[in-house]
Amino acid sequence: MSDPWQECMDHCVEVAKEAGKVIREALTKDIAVMQKSSPVDLVTETDQRVERLIIASIKEKYPAHSFIGEESVAAGAPSVLTDDPTWIIDPIDGTTNFVHRFPFVSVSIGFTVKKEIEFGIVYSCIEDKMYTARKGKGAFCNGDPIKVSGQEDISQSMVLTEMNFHKDPECFKTMLANVKSILTIPVHGVRSPGSAAVNMCLVACGSADAFYHMGIHCWDMAGGAAVVTEAGGVIMDVSGGPFDLMSRRLIIASSRAIAERIAKEITEFHVGRDDTDGE
Amino acid sequence: MSDPWQECMDHCVEVAKEAGKVIREALTKDIAVMQKSSPVDLVTETDQRVERLIIASIKEKYPAHSFIGEESVAAGAPSVLTDDPTWIIDPIDGTTNFVHRFPFVSVSIGFTVKKEIEFGIVYSCIEDKMYTARKGKGAFCNGDPIKVSGQEDISQSMVLTEMNFHKDPECFKTMLANVKSILTIPVHGVRSPGSAAVNMCLVACGSADAFYHMGIHCWDMAGGAAVVTEAGGVIMDVSGGPFDLMSRRLIIASSRAIAERIAKEITEFHVGRDDTDGE
Repeated sequence: MSDPWQECMDHCVEVAKEAGKVIREALTKDIAVMQKSSPVDLVTETDQRVERLIIASIKEKYPAHSFIGEESVAAGAPSVLTDDPTWIIDPIDGTTNFVHRFPFVSVSIGFTVKKEIEFGIVYSCIEDKMYTARKGKGAFCNGDPIKVSGQEDISQSMVLTEMNFHKDPECFKTMLANVKSILTIPVHGVRSPGSAAVNMCLVACGSADAFYHMGIHCWDMAGGAAVVTEAGGVIMDVSGGPFDLMSRRLIIASSRAIAERIAKEITEFHVGRDDTDGE
Repeated sequence: MSDPWQECMDHCVEVAKEAGKVIREALTKDIAVMQKSSPVDLVTETDQRVERLIIASIKEKYPAHSFIGEESVAAGAPSVLTDDPTWIIDPIDGTTNFVHRFPFVSVSIGFTVKKEIEFGIVYSCIEDKMYTARKGKGAFCNGDPIKVSGQEDISQSMVLTEMNFHKDPECFKTMLANVKSILTIPVHGVRSPGSAAVNMCLVACGSADAFYHMGIHCWDMAGGAAVVTEAGGVIMDVSGGPFDLMSRRLIIASSRAIAERIAKEITEFHVGRDDTDGE
């Protein structure tokens, strides 16, 4: 039996390349505008344009499929995961990086059927690195197979996370205390590149050994989750329980030992879910 | 009158390219070794080899010049800046990144005469970006002129710093409190790419608006200091006073307003100097 979703994946790679091209052009052409006017408006405009481009191209070929997209959700579309074939799209992952032309900006697309991720792609478009993964078939970067470092010793590991300001003082305090806990182990280093999807791919290709985050969205995780899993990585919830795509939190690592140690070290704070209204 | 140091700078660029090639080869060939044996030994070996290569090549042409190199200093050579023409060399800036193949690894070389930086280069060798700056002649990346963002509003800015574990609990606490202060402003984002020299170049080319650090060395700063200054950036001490290459601390920014605001927000902790024995 032929793979029913491989054609979707091939189309996904093509559309991500096109989207990446639009993003790179926006960075080149609009940089003068960006520095003079409100960068937030420009990023929103590019974000929406890229998401429309992606969804239009996919809808034309697969009109019956469902979509969850960062910009569509912002505009009021639901983000409840159903059993339908569903494309989960972040047109620009790392929007703050995009505004600053900081070199990690990606297009992230995951595809689920019956709530299971069938394939995912992350196109780090400034670096021109296309990460792809089809369930059961391995992970690749620009066509070359990739795998996690296999590191099991957290004291030898490079850990990625992102530090954001939180209006809730308790969340902010816990976020900072978590960074302190990880540094105190001590690990080799903590890095913050600013794009969740790229962070996941850096773990997938062995350039880092773990990434954890709370407050992330399903469209930040869906593409990278496929890549890191197929690269041999471990993905779990920050509680140490099973990963939940709609939970807005995750740990990924090169090994179960490292993922479980991070789950033990960090303290949870409330971030709500993607599929409920509550924050 | 012709520029007496331009020939030195041209030679510097050539030797940095060679050094970068050696580093890239080490990353490709030795990765299996690195993952199986002690990565610290491998990095030391490559670091020393690259520094010897750089110093031998420069000494052959300029036998009367002085040198301050990370590895030579580790081996007992003095790191006192004199009036002599002096090459200040970091063969691999971002050694932890190097061990993990995290994509920011650079060769950093600054050249001083009468304690003033005459030129500097930073070769981000995985990205293949050669940043160069000759005093009074501007800054370049791969030959194209670069300049800082010009951002004056810290609330619109991207700030770089590095988070390290410090054995001294007071230093560690202050380092983390400083990150909290910067995030609380709030800024657009805080990023930690893991190579001081690359961080300086990211500010120089406008991809970030500031970088501050305490505990850095003169060889981490000398090349980047030239690049960021020639790109129109501001460089100062963390106290807000004049930058001192041997002080092990700095703030750089796209504008005086941002540099001064960071100086106001962060608290100093003791890191010693490069030119005295005390830590």
